[in-house]
Amino acid sequence: MFFEGSEKKVQIIVNEKKLSLLTGIADAFWHGFVNSSGAKILSTIESNHCKAFLLSESSLFIWPHKLILITCGTTQLIKAIEFFIHEFSLQPIEQILYQRKNEYFSYAQPSCFSQDIKVLREYVSGAAYRFGAVDSHHNYLFHQENGYKANINDKSYEIVAYHISHSASRLLTHGKLTANEIRTLFQINELFPNFTIDDHVFHPFGYSLNGIKNENYFTIHITPQAESSYISVSANFDLIALLPRLIAILDPTTIDILTSNELNFEEKVKGNLPPPFVCTSLVKETLSIGDEILFSSYSQKTKQCSEAISLATNNEIQSL
Amino acid sequence: MFFEGSEKKVQIIVNEKKLSLLTGIADAFWHGFVNSSGAKILSTIESNHCKAFLLSESSLFIWPHKLILITCGTTQLIKAIEFFIHEFSLQPIEQILYQRKNEYFSYAQPSCFSQDIKVLREYVSGAAYRFGAVDSHHNYLFHQENGYKANINDKSYEIVAYHISHSASRLLTHGKLTANEIRTLFQINELFPNFTIDDHVFHPFGYSLNGIKNENYFTIHITPQAESSYISVSANFDLIALLPRLIAILDPTTIDILTSNELNFEEKVKGNLPPPFVCTSLVKETLSIGDEILFSSYSQKTKQCSEAISLATNNEIQSL
Repeated sequence: MFFEGSEKKVQIIVNEKKLSLLTGIADAFWHGFVNSSGAKILSTIESNHCKAFLLSESSLFIWPHKLILITCGTTQLIKAIEFFIHEFSLQPIEQILYQRKNEYFSYAQPSCFSQDIKVLREYVSGAAYRFGAVDSHHNYLFHQENGYKANINDKSYEIVAYHISHSASRLLTHGKLTANEIRTLFQINELFPNFTIDDHVFHPFGYSLNGIKNENYFTIHITPQAESSYISVSANFDLIALLPRLIAILDPTTIDILTSNELNFEEKVKGNLPPPFVCTSLVKETLSIGDEILFSSYSQKTKQCSEAISLATNNEIQSL
Repeated sequence: MFFEGSEKKVQIIVNEKKLSLLTGIADAFWHGFVNSSGAKILSTIESNHCKAFLLSESSLFIWPHKLILITCGTTQLIKAIEFFIHEFSLQPIEQILYQRKNEYFSYAQPSCFSQDIKVLREYVSGAAYRFGAVDSHHNYLFHQENGYKANINDKSYEIVAYHISHSASRLLTHGKLTANEIRTLFQINELFPNFTIDDHVFHPFGYSLNGIKNENYFTIHITPQAESSYISVSANFDLIALLPRLIAILDPTTIDILTSNELNFEEKVKGNLPPPFVCTSLVKETLSIGDEILFSSYSQKTKQCSEAISLATNNEIQSL
């Protein structure tokens, strides 16, 4: 069964004096917020500083002044943004930052980025960018333009692994792995010590994990199906040193990395990407709100596609 | 203005004793055939062996036993195949071979390949393949399975250049180039001597050319817009030696090549692709009907995308 792992993401920053997202809003609202996008809340964990919801399609994180909603599949995250604005008006909102990755099968999506932005622009004005060529891996980004200045100490890291090895795909799709076994495979306890973890194994395939510690979060989403494998790891702290382990576990053909405000990216990546990976895209832009965004993509030349895929037995043709 | 240059193509082979496509069918039928896909016939040339129609979206070529229809934009070539079957039944048809390239904006297409194949399979059974990874350049192919055996002396060559240089794009979009100037730019007379040529400059941008000589044809389609440039050259004779000139004129970031029954492809390409181009895909498959299909893709690492594209002033956002 085909599943679109590629994610849409929104970060909404509010004026905490006008609205505290963490203490001022009942969970019922967050259920409605997530439902409006087409996803569902499965479970919740919290620290003193934030709350993390594990969703049927990805994750929601809430701090007093900020939320991050990530959804995948054919969800319409844009509808959750509208839901938020309809509930609280634009008044407490300081900044909306909306991102969307290229999809495996954009044809199957209920909207494209340009249509999403048209909806957003009915509420707020802003700037939109594409990082990367339209016919290769790329990220779209929209940010509100309203005089807001970002705190460049707020960093974010998103790593996506595409086309993982057959053995990793087989292991992750055999249907009997427990959450604990997947945690062990990804060495979660060693790599993320002292995090509170909430995870879920989906049937027939798929795995999601939220981890929080104080103000920090990380999240892992696994779509392991061989033909459309997509494994994302995101956090608000540096993940670049994780690359060698991720590559050892997954042996992906391509890795995309999107960072914001990581100023030593190129240097750090150099020491953490083994030689078969060559850079195929490196796009940098300092947004007018101050965030420095960097998108890069790396492929293993030696793992390039060399077999024609028969679609008679391939699910792509059944699901699309 | 954004335009989807990526093409769909069908080759229909008939039993000439049951139906001669060249002498047995009035032009009125071909107008209806092309119209059914959403394109229009603009002009016609003919040789003793074939007829070539230049279309509002690409080209149609007809021989006594074979037709090749190529359409681009948001046309639905699949509807022309249905139109043909409704008119003549399956009886004279020996083989239907349908191809579709990855689009720049598949979201804007009225159907995806899988949906097209679902339609085709209402009439004929066959095998479908994808050549290349779904998240990079790829070609879809469907062929009928009915005991037909291809003549492996029937070769085909398709070269596509993506993301041409700014100067080539500027030259081809300045709006005042004549067909003659474009022929000179591409050295048509030197490269294709003694061909009968039919070409058309589109407004505001774009250029199509059909050339025929005896049984041979070639066709060029140019979508020069900087953000979605796409230039295709196809023929039923060897085009590989053309690569150095094409690259010198266009300096594209990526070149895709799809051949059928060219058995020395790798050796020939090696001598004709200058070093900045590295192979990113090479997929080979011998179809059950006997055709050997090879799809390959090459990129210039040094020309990789490094700038974020602002969509505020970019037409992608207006057209999608």
